[in-house]
Amino acid sequence: MTGVATFHAIIPAGGAGTRLWPLSRAARPKFLLDLEGTGRTLIQQTWDRLLPLTGAGNIHVVCGAAHGGAIAAQLPELVNLLLEPSPRDSMPAIGLAAAIIERSDPEAIIGSFAADHRIEDPERFVAAVREAIAVAERGYVVTVGVTPTEPSTAFGYIRGGAALAGFTSARAVHEFVEKPDAETAQAYLESGDHVWNAGMFVARASVLLDALARFRPALAAGVRAIAATWGTAGFVAELERRWDGLEKIAIDHAVAEPVAAEGGMAVVPATFAWDDLGDFAALAPLGSTPDVLWVDADGVARGQDGVQIAVLGLRNVAVIQTPDAVLVADLAQSQRVKEIVAALAERERTDLL
Amino acid sequence: MTGVATFHAIIPAGGAGTRLWPLSRAARPKFLLDLEGTGRTLIQQTWDRLLPLTGAGNIHVVCGAAHGGAIAAQLPELVNLLLEPSPRDSMPAIGLAAAIIERSDPEAIIGSFAADHRIEDPERFVAAVREAIAVAERGYVVTVGVTPTEPSTAFGYIRGGAALAGFTSARAVHEFVEKPDAETAQAYLESGDHVWNAGMFVARASVLLDALARFRPALAAGVRAIAATWGTAGFVAELERRWDGLEKIAIDHAVAEPVAAEGGMAVVPATFAWDDLGDFAALAPLGSTPDVLWVDADGVARGQDGVQIAVLGLRNVAVIQTPDAVLVADLAQSQRVKEIVAALAERERTDLL
Repeated sequence: MTGVATFHAIIPAGGAGTRLWPLSRAARPKFLLDLEGTGRTLIQQTWDRLLPLTGAGNIHVVCGAAHGGAIAAQLPELVNLLLEPSPRDSMPAIGLAAAIIERSDPEAIIGSFAADHRIEDPERFVAAVREAIAVAERGYVVTVGVTPTEPSTAFGYIRGGAALAGFTSARAVHEFVEKPDAETAQAYLESGDHVWNAGMFVARASVLLDALARFRPALAAGVRAIAATWGTAGFVAELERRWDGLEKIAIDHAVAEPVAAEGGMAVVPATFAWDDLGDFAALAPLGSTPDVLWVDADGVARGQDGVQIAVLGLRNVAVIQTPDAVLVADLAQSQRVKEIVAALAERERTDLL
Repeated sequence: MTGVATFHAIIPAGGAGTRLWPLSRAARPKFLLDLEGTGRTLIQQTWDRLLPLTGAGNIHVVCGAAHGGAIAAQLPELVNLLLEPSPRDSMPAIGLAAAIIERSDPEAIIGSFAADHRIEDPERFVAAVREAIAVAERGYVVTVGVTPTEPSTAFGYIRGGAALAGFTSARAVHEFVEKPDAETAQAYLESGDHVWNAGMFVARASVLLDALARFRPALAAGVRAIAATWGTAGFVAELERRWDGLEKIAIDHAVAEPVAAEGGMAVVPATFAWDDLGDFAALAPLGSTPDVLWVDADGVARGQDGVQIAVLGLRNVAVIQTPDAVLVADLAQSQRVKEIVAALAERERTDLL
């Protein structure tokens, strides 16, 4: 192992990815898909990126009960798999994993990383996380932010403050800001002070949970109480008894924003190519199924082997073919694919969801 | 039988229908398809419309050798099936059938009708053909024209002349005119003198062939020579020996236009809803596969049972799904679907043609 001894990675594998329907389904969410055609799914690529930092034994996946089997099949070396009784957003999932890690190693540093993002340069990712770990050892909650390459309105931003003494690039976090409009995004890009919030958080487990205890005491007490039964016969019963009472909240709101306001949050800006692959517009740069025929047309097309896709006279379209569904959409409206999923749900087409 | 005793119908079943790819294929041309979802294919509907006029024994289908089996399967009562050694447009096909009919009944009236057009009102069709037969008995070559309901630029037009004495609606034909531009089409519509050329021709077999002998003597001699061997052991050999030497020409140019110029052509205007279903734009009014999901979108969608089609944010599009191909096209450019077929041919994807 070349990993950092006390570092654990937590992968909260949630999110339906309904904007990628019909590729993503309830039973086959985005993180289980090989959207780039590399032969590795997004969660497998996440695993591959983290492995040099942690080793297999220090990677913890938290997922819905319905996906445990598929994840175990895709990650045969995974040993730490926590099944959520119900989806409660990222803070309960990360908090429970952190609390379990804290019990076995109170000095452990944890990092949480989305299961379904794309990062092009794993070496730069590892270097940025290593710096984040070093900053976290000083007691900060640290986020790895991505230096913007365009004025995107699809991501939240982090405004950096003063440089942290003793580090190459780490800065204090001034504030987290929500997805901006185009003009604001352009100003952020030009400011040089703003990075994209890529949802990566690194902290000592105890620092994270103590911060949670200050801002969301019931939630911190809840996950620590469940974690106290970890490794005992009573764990599952305790988990099921307490889980649905935990506050449903994202780690950004529960910890990152209030800690930033206190001055306890740091950011490590990184320059790897990153995307959350939130919709088909994000998929377009990754290319189409081979042999798609475009005649006065362009966009992104994905289909099954043995199915010829042909597009005539349409610009910037998504054509997504699966064995039981075909989606055709204006790429500029690809965020609205979730409306298709909602309409199918209303028609009770659970076979297609 | 309620048919007219000496009336024979000829159905030249040719044409690739490449503008309806991927529904139509070389081995499954448009006339073999049930485009309306009625349970009857276009050639079966053509058969159904003609049967009251002819009886099964007086319907003659002329088709490419590759389609004989499929046609026989779709029309189990068909007895007169002529296989063309190669496609040579409509005049050789109709001429050969007419020459064979002429030999058994020199007084026979023949009518030729495309295998792949759509007619909504079969009673009006029968009435119009009956009037055309009566006019043909006077020695005219008669066409049934369709009264325009819109200024279509997709069809050729026929300009009517003086009314024929003794008939309800028949008129002399002044001229055939090619597909017009939008302005000219509007003028035709307003004139009241123009009907659509629906490619239906009725004449005494001997009148048709004698006219052909005046304008295309070699072609008339060729089909009559082949017909002279009909019913003998030498027929197929004679057909194969002469066929490829016959001029490749449509009946419109070979007979209808020059006979009109002589004053020998009549038109019976008819008011049934008619369409040649030439492309997906023509298919749009017939509706889509059930359960297609349109979200801020419209057009025509056709898919297999068990495949959900969903369209988002696109207007006037065609989405055509088959087991081995998906076509997505701007309906306004649906004539260009043949470019897709040409591109596949260039790639030697004969499996898809």
